[in-house]
Amino acid sequence: MDQHQRTWDAALADLKRQLVHMAAVAETMIDASIAELVNRDEHLAEKIPELENDLNRMQIEVDDAALTLLATQQPVAKDLRFIMAATRINGELERIGDLVVNITENTEVLLAQPPLKPLIDIPHMADITRQMVRQSLEAFLREDPLLAQSVILTDDQVDGFKDQILRELLTYMMADPRTIERGLALILVARHLERMADHATNIAQNVIYLCQGRDVRHPKIQKDTPPA
Amino acid sequence: MDQHQRTWDAALADLKRQLVHMAAVAETMIDASIAELVNRDEHLAEKIPELENDLNRMQIEVDDAALTLLATQQPVAKDLRFIMAATRINGELERIGDLVVNITENTEVLLAQPPLKPLIDIPHMADITRQMVRQSLEAFLREDPLLAQSVILTDDQVDGFKDQILRELLTYMMADPRTIERGLALILVARHLERMADHATNIAQNVIYLCQGRDVRHPKIQKDTPPA
Repeated sequence: MDQHQRTWDAALADLKRQLVHMAAVAETMIDASIAELVNRDEHLAEKIPELENDLNRMQIEVDDAALTLLATQQPVAKDLRFIMAATRINGELERIGDLVVNITENTEVLLAQPPLKPLIDIPHMADITRQMVRQSLEAFLREDPLLAQSVILTDDQVDGFKDQILRELLTYMMADPRTIERGLALILVARHLERMADHATNIAQNVIYLCQGRDVRHPKIQKDTPPA
Repeated sequence: MDQHQRTWDAALADLKRQLVHMAAVAETMIDASIAELVNRDEHLAEKIPELENDLNRMQIEVDDAALTLLATQQPVAKDLRFIMAATRINGELERIGDLVVNITENTEVLLAQPPLKPLIDIPHMADITRQMVRQSLEAFLREDPLLAQSVILTDDQVDGFKDQILRELLTYMMADPRTIERGLALILVARHLERMADHATNIAQNVIYLCQGRDVRHPKIQKDTPPA
């Protein structure tokens, strides 16, 4: 193994480590935001601003590392696709962090008033979403298109939850106008979770692109993309 | 000028043309979705699914072109940053298209019922957002960091509109539960527009990064990024 290959392998391992760390931070943030909401305890979310800042910093670090690798190693084919995938995955993880912050904003509205209803579906939806984030990263590390595909399929389940939660909360809101503000806040929490699941889906699509050189982001488009 | 430089210049011009076209399609889509909503006329939005498909296709084309350029020309410094910016900007434009489709879904709910109120703020918000999209692309083409900065500043205005629209609609919803579904749909339309403005802001941040080699996506992080 020559020096060039060793440098490259070490740099790739580093990039993977950073992305795994970003995903772990994003998962912790999701958990903390939902724990705060369900247990009505603001202390459970107090680390979130700091963690979001970590995610933002790591996003820039991954981009810088990727740019340096592109400029100095000039990779082609699968190595090039790997770098491109990494610079997209870090963006998806960073946006998940933003959405967690959005949830804490809605939770602020909710904790200022008595509980509207016991929260069952939202924590369940959050669990599925968190698992999608974890599995999409695992699929990336293992370069496993089948695992990536299963993440993509799970997204329908999350969409189903979002619709069900919307319908249920609309009934509350129509029956009693005093519940409108809280109902809306919970509807938005469900939407934020659904968008996180979309970001996990985007990560999974990047994994398939990486493994197969095939762009699956828009399955409806007929297109033959030869592997790079 | 050597052959390599000519190939590169032609490829860059091509990439720019594709992005300008994508932005024009996104702007047309925004206009069509708001025209449908304001005039309560479904025909005004009938081109949207086809245009969204165009955006999706062009996103992949830009990525393919960027990947080919990276692999065959192996650019460094500003040229490399340009390619990276292009592969991000196309993603932002594609997501604007997705958000337009979301608006048409909310409009479907709204057109099935009588108008809730005359729509003044939403079309105004849409105009500002559309201009942000246009100006962010102009800033990219001219490599004009000042214009990009003014796009970033306009985002606060759009956020203000979103909050104002939310507060107004909540009053309607609380006064008359029969308006809840429509109120929620309009709140979501405003949120979709606000997210489009966020994407225009992301484009503008990429322009500043391109021009200055400085990452402004997370201004709160203290970091010295030397130009690549």
